Amino acid sequence: MKLKIAVLPGDGIGPEVTKQAVAILKVIGEVYHHSFEFEEALVGAIAIDKTNDPLPEATLELCKKSDAVLFGAIGDPKYDNNPDAKVRPEQGLLKLRKELGLFANIRPIKAFDSLIEKSPLKTSIIEGTNMVIYRELTGGIYFGERKLSDDGTTASDLCEYSQFEIERIAHLAFKAAQTRNKRVTLVDKANVLETSRLWRRVVTQLAKEYPDVTLDFLFVDNAAMQMILNPRQFDVILTENMFGDIISDEGSVIGGSIGLLASASVGNENALFEPIHGSYPQAKGKNIANPIAAILCAAMLLEHFGLKEEAKAIHKAVEQSLENNIVTPDLNSVRSFGTDYVGSVIANYILNTDDSNYVNYE
Amino acid sequence: MKLKIAVLPGDGIGPEVTKQAVAILKVIGEVYHHSFEFEEALVGAIAIDKTNDPLPEATLELCKKSDAVLFGAIGDPKYDNNPDAKVRPEQGLLKLRKELGLFANIRPIKAFDSLIEKSPLKTSIIEGTNMVIYRELTGGIYFGERKLSDDGTTASDLCEYSQFEIERIAHLAFKAAQTRNKRVTLVDKANVLETSRLWRRVVTQLAKEYPDVTLDFLFVDNAAMQMILNPRQFDVILTENMFGDIISDEGSVIGGSIGLLASASVGNENALFEPIHGSYPQAKGKNIANPIAAILCAAMLLEHFGLKEEAKAIHKAVEQSLENNIVTPDLNSVRSFGTDYVGSVIANYILNTDDSNYVNYE
Ligand SMILES: CC(C)[C@H](C(=O)O)[C@@H](O)C(=O)O
Ligand SMILES: CC(C)[C@H](C(=O)O)[C@@H](O)C(=O)O
Repeated sequence: MKLKIAVLPGDGIGPEVTKQAVAILKVIGEVYHHSFEFEEALVGAIAIDKTNDPLPEATLELCKKSDAVLFGAIGDPKYDNNPDAKVRPEQGLLKLRKELGLFANIRPIKAFDSLIEKSPLKTSIIEGTNMVIYRELTGGIYFGERKLSDDGTTASDLCEYSQFEIERIAHLAFKAAQTRNKRVTLVDKANVLETSRLWRRVVTQLAKEYPDVTLDFLFVDNAAMQMILNPRQFDVILTENMFGDIISDEGSVIGGSIGLLASASVGNENALFEPIHGSYPQAKGKNIANPIAAILCAAMLLEHFGLKEEAKAIHKAVEQSLENNIVTPDLNSVRSFGTDYVGSVIANYILNTDDSNYVNYE
Repeated sequence: MKLKIAVLPGDGIGPEVTKQAVAILKVIGEVYHHSFEFEEALVGAIAIDKTNDPLPEATLELCKKSDAVLFGAIGDPKYDNNPDAKVRPEQGLLKLRKELGLFANIRPIKAFDSLIEKSPLKTSIIEGTNMVIYRELTGGIYFGERKLSDDGTTASDLCEYSQFEIERIAHLAFKAAQTRNKRVTLVDKANVLETSRLWRRVVTQLAKEYPDVTLDFLFVDNAAMQMILNPRQFDVILTENMFGDIISDEGSVIGGSIGLLASASVGNENALFEPIHGSYPQAKGKNIANPIAAILCAAMLLEHFGLKEEAKAIHKAVEQSLENNIVTPDLNSVRSFGTDYVGSVIANYILNTDDSNYVNYE
C-alpha cells in the first residue's frame, strides 16, 4: 500500500515521541513492503513562534493532500492561563479538525494487565476494562458562535447540533459496537439541554438499524461517576464534543498510564492520529517521554487503512516491551529507559520474530 | 433561634431520609432551645402526579417565606429517557434554584477514615482528601436560551455568563478558602470558551482582594483527571454550572460513600440543603436508604445560620454511628440497620453525651 503521511510533531514532547512512531512505521513499511511517504509541518506553539499562526496554510495544505496525519502534541505554558492571548496553540488543532472534517474522535481505553497496579483505582474495579469512546469532534459548543459584550462584562458560547452531525458519528459508534460487545451508551444531559434531547431522539431512531446492538442512556454527571465506580460496564460510549472531552480524559487515567493511550480523529476524507498525553512541557527534550502512545497511534493508522496484521505486529511488540520492562520512567521508577531506546527496542521486536536477544538488553 | 424550614421530601428515598433529618433537627431544637418550625410541600415527580407541575405555586410560596429549605430528592424512572416529555421533575428543581436565587452550590468532599476501604480509589490516593466545590447554580447553559428548529433537525443551547454572576460566587469561594487551606482552583475551558475566558479575567481580578489566597487554574478535562489521580491537591474548587455538575458528581464517589454527602445551595435570601445521592428509586420504601447525607444536610443548615456547636453535635453523632457500625447496607453488607434505626441512634447520640448504652444496641 502507498500512503502519504503528514507528520506534525508540534510542541513539548511531541517531536520526540512522533519520531519514534515514524521510525516504527518505516520498519513496518520495510517488513510488509508498503511505501509510506512522510512530510513534516509546523503546528501549535512552535508554529506561532515561527509564523505567528498555530496552523500555517502550508501545514493545512499538506494535511489535505495527505492520506493521514500523525500528530504529536500542542500547548506551551507561555500561552496558557492568559485569557487575553489573541493567538493560542489550541486554535490550530481546532481549525485542523474542522478543515479536515474530522468529526469523530475515537479513544480506546483498556486496562493493561501488566500495568494494573499503576491504576489509581482498585484492581477489582479496573481489571477487565475495555471500552472505546466516540466523541463528536467538530460540532457543539466548541464551534458555536462566541460573544463578548463591548464592555467586556458578559460572554456567551452557543452549543448547536444538527441531526446530520449526530447521525454520522452515531453510525460509526454502532458499527464499532457490532464488532465488540454490542452495547452503545449515549452520554448526555437530556434532563436539561435541548441539544441532548435531539441527540437522544436521533440516536434512538438510528439504533433501529442496528437491532443487534443495545442502546442505553446515561446523564453525563452519572457517567463521570460510573467511569470510576464500574468502568467494566462500558463497551462503546457515544457523546457530544464537550462531554466527550471531559469523560474521555477521565477515562484515560483509570488504566494506570496515560502514556499508552492513542486516539484517532476521523472524517470522510482524512484521519489524524494523536497520543492523548498532550505536550507535557516539563519533560521536553529530556528523553523520558513514553513513546508508546505515539507508537500505538501508528498502529491505529494502519488499522484505519485495513492493515490489520501490521497493526497487530505493533501491538505485540509493545506488549513485549511492557512485559520485559523496557519502559520509560513513568512506568517504572526503579529501572527505566530513554524514549529513543524504548522506541528502538519496539522496532527491533517487530523486525525479529525471535526477540530473545532483547529481553536482557541494557 | 427561630427558623421556619420548608420540607420538600420529593421522590424515591427522599421522604424516608428527609424524615430522619427533620427528627434530628427537632432533637437539636430541644437540646439547644431553638424553635424550628417545619412545613411540608410537594416537589418533583410526586408533584407532577398530583398537580401536573413539578414545582407547584404553593411549594414555591412556602419556600420563599421560609428561612431555609430541606430538600429530599427528585426523579422517577417513568419520566427518564423520554426526550419528548413535556413536564419533567428536574424542571421543578431548576425553577426552584432560579426563583430562590440559589446561585452557589456548595459541596464538601471528604474522605472519612472509617470508610476509606470503600473508596474505588487506592487508599494512598484518597486518604486525607478534603475539598469543597463551589458550583455556580443559576447561570450558564442550564438557563440559557434553548432552540429547536421547526422541523426538529437542529437544536441549540446558549451558555451565558455575566461578571456579576461570576463575582458573587467567587467571593464565597475565596472567603471559604480563607477559613481553609487558602487555595482556590478555577476549573474552566478557557482554551476554547469565551465564557471561560470571562471567568478567568473576572476571578483573576477579584483574587487581588484576597491576597492570602492562592488562585490557580485547571482546564475541566484535566480537572476530571486530577480528581482521580490526586484529589488531595484540592482545597476550594470554583467552577461554572455544567462543569460543576460533572466534576462534583465525579468527586462525590471518590470517598467511598455517596450516602454521606450533603450539599448546600445558597443565595442572598434563602438556602436549600440537599443530599447529593438523588432519588435512588430502586431503594424506595425499603427502609435501606442511608439517612446520613440528609442528616448532614441538617448540620449544614445549622452552620449556615451560625449554629456551629449544634452542627458539630450532629457531626460527632454521625461519626459515632460510623465508628460503631450502626449503618445502612450500603456501608456494611454483613451487618446493617434500617434507615429509621440509624436515624434514631444518631438522634440518641445527640441526646446523650453518655452514649455507652447504644454501642452494643441491636
Ligand atoms: C486542546 C483542546 C482544545 C482539546 C479539546 O478540548 O478538544 C484537547 O483537550 C483534546 O481533548 O484534544
Ligand atoms: C437533576 C439535575 C437537573 C441536577 C443538575 O444537573 O443540576 C442534578 O444533577 C444536580 O446536580 O443537582
